[in-house]
Amino acid sequence: MSEYSIGLDLGGTNLRAAAVDAKGKMLQKIWATTDLSRGPEAVMEDMAKAIDALRHSLGSQSLHGIGVAVPGFIRLKEGVIMGSNNLAVLEGFPMRDALQTRLDAPVILENDANAAAMGEKWIGAGRDVDDLVLVTLGTGIGGGIISGGRILHGFLGMAGEIGHITVVPNGNPCGCGNHGCLEKHASATAIAGLGRMIGLGDVTSEEVYELAKKGDTRALAVFEHMGRALGMALAVLVNIFNFPLYLISGGPIPAWDVFSIPMMAELKQRSFTYRASKTVVAKAELGNEAGLYGAAYLPWSTETNYVARG
Amino acid sequence: MSEYSIGLDLGGTNLRAAAVDAKGKMLQKIWATTDLSRGPEAVMEDMAKAIDALRHSLGSQSLHGIGVAVPGFIRLKEGVIMGSNNLAVLEGFPMRDALQTRLDAPVILENDANAAAMGEKWIGAGRDVDDLVLVTLGTGIGGGIISGGRILHGFLGMAGEIGHITVVPNGNPCGCGNHGCLEKHASATAIAGLGRMIGLGDVTSEEVYELAKKGDTRALAVFEHMGRALGMALAVLVNIFNFPLYLISGGPIPAWDVFSIPMMAELKQRSFTYRASKTVVAKAELGNEAGLYGAAYLPWSTETNYVARG
Repeated sequence: MSEYSIGLDLGGTNLRAAAVDAKGKMLQKIWATTDLSRGPEAVMEDMAKAIDALRHSLGSQSLHGIGVAVPGFIRLKEGVIMGSNNLAVLEGFPMRDALQTRLDAPVILENDANAAAMGEKWIGAGRDVDDLVLVTLGTGIGGGIISGGRILHGFLGMAGEIGHITVVPNGNPCGCGNHGCLEKHASATAIAGLGRMIGLGDVTSEEVYELAKKGDTRALAVFEHMGRALGMALAVLVNIFNFPLYLISGGPIPAWDVFSIPMMAELKQRSFTYRASKTVVAKAELGNEAGLYGAAYLPWSTETNYVARG
Repeated sequence: MSEYSIGLDLGGTNLRAAAVDAKGKMLQKIWATTDLSRGPEAVMEDMAKAIDALRHSLGSQSLHGIGVAVPGFIRLKEGVIMGSNNLAVLEGFPMRDALQTRLDAPVILENDANAAAMGEKWIGAGRDVDDLVLVTLGTGIGGGIISGGRILHGFLGMAGEIGHITVVPNGNPCGCGNHGCLEKHASATAIAGLGRMIGLGDVTSEEVYELAKKGDTRALAVFEHMGRALGMALAVLVNIFNFPLYLISGGPIPAWDVFSIPMMAELKQRSFTYRASKTVVAKAELGNEAGLYGAAYLPWSTETNYVARG
């Protein structure tokens, strides 16, 4: 059979692993729960088991490589997870080496937002470009930047922290120490929080959207604020990168028709580069499978960032 | 004699050209006035004459290549100057091809801020890194981004518009159509404007600095505002790029000791990436020769952005 790679995407309560061929066709997928409270070794073992199951099913001979996407910063050369907000229990754990030893095979470790951006570039909404930014709206806001077909890592693998662009200088306080970070004004969590603040009660972001669809002026005001915040951050990105494509994904995407109007208005006003070019802002295509595909792509890429250089 | 390249930096009222060897040693330099009102052909002829003089002096045999830095956006593949605020007369002029025909030699055309960033990377404050951002404070604010040792151009050569990052959402109006652009709050022009607004009279940015040195509280308030604006933009850049080095150059640099304190305070507060890493923010080293060196470097680089791809 033809060669395949294995990608794994680790979330807060579950993991998914998939075997994918060189053209991005998914051959087999595994979904499993994982319990972070059992510690990094146990999580690593859950990951290894899912990878092993695919490897046994499809055969070791045809396995091209293994890519693993996890939340948090990755020290690329060391393959160590650092400063993960959602997965504090994994902080400092040498995940790459532990997996390599357990699996007796090379493993590439990557940040999940970076992997998602690479997935979109490979077979998603970014397949026709070499440069894009992916903004993911969730509990927080993550970002991945693809420049010249490669992930922009920065010198410590911390690049792409789009959720912490200041959009309201004296805005909502953020856990990062700043005020007015994008993710405090435009994430799914922020939408729900703004809804509560404006008197909608104990709502979820989905409920704010349902209210907005019915024409509730307070819910619409929430998405006006959220869209403008996102538009301001997009303007910064467009002015800095002049990339052809900016993708948005995540839970609030169903509300696109509501928030994209103020978002695009703000972007248009704040970026002459946008007005002077055929820059595209669009929904991502792979949803929450983007990180899985991106992780599976990593072994096919020619990047050398993932190995220690002597 | 050893090989050399020729770099030329075109300003609003003058031009400078230099012959530089492969190690960045300047062999000879020419300075000349130029009169933009005489039209693009005449300016091109002034540029060609300066380049010719160096070529005659040092010999065509050893000439490795010619790089030319001009303000404004460059359509890289076509070698055409677009949308230049300061040099409107040159807009749409096919400068690269005109120079190539006149000189009968290949010419690389580049934006001046990008060339300056490359100059600093080559033999200036950035010589030890592969990734940096240069922010130039002048009439406006220009930026150049070096990623992986190469200029980040974006798909139309418009990347690096750092002067148009929004730092005060409802701030001073900008010619670009936005409000609160960095360059309206932190350029040399902005420093003078803020000084006038705060009641210092018809001052220059240098005079605001002289007053600040003497402890004038209004002048100090101007630099407090300017430093905080710059710090906010730096925080955005650090969060997005996670590069090891951010350089600042331009007329207000003598006031570094005054504005860098609020600048660094703002950066520190707004970027956990800065706090978590050994990111360096420093003065550039080459002053207004950076663009000249950077232009001279271009023929030595291996970038392929400058030629039309079929």
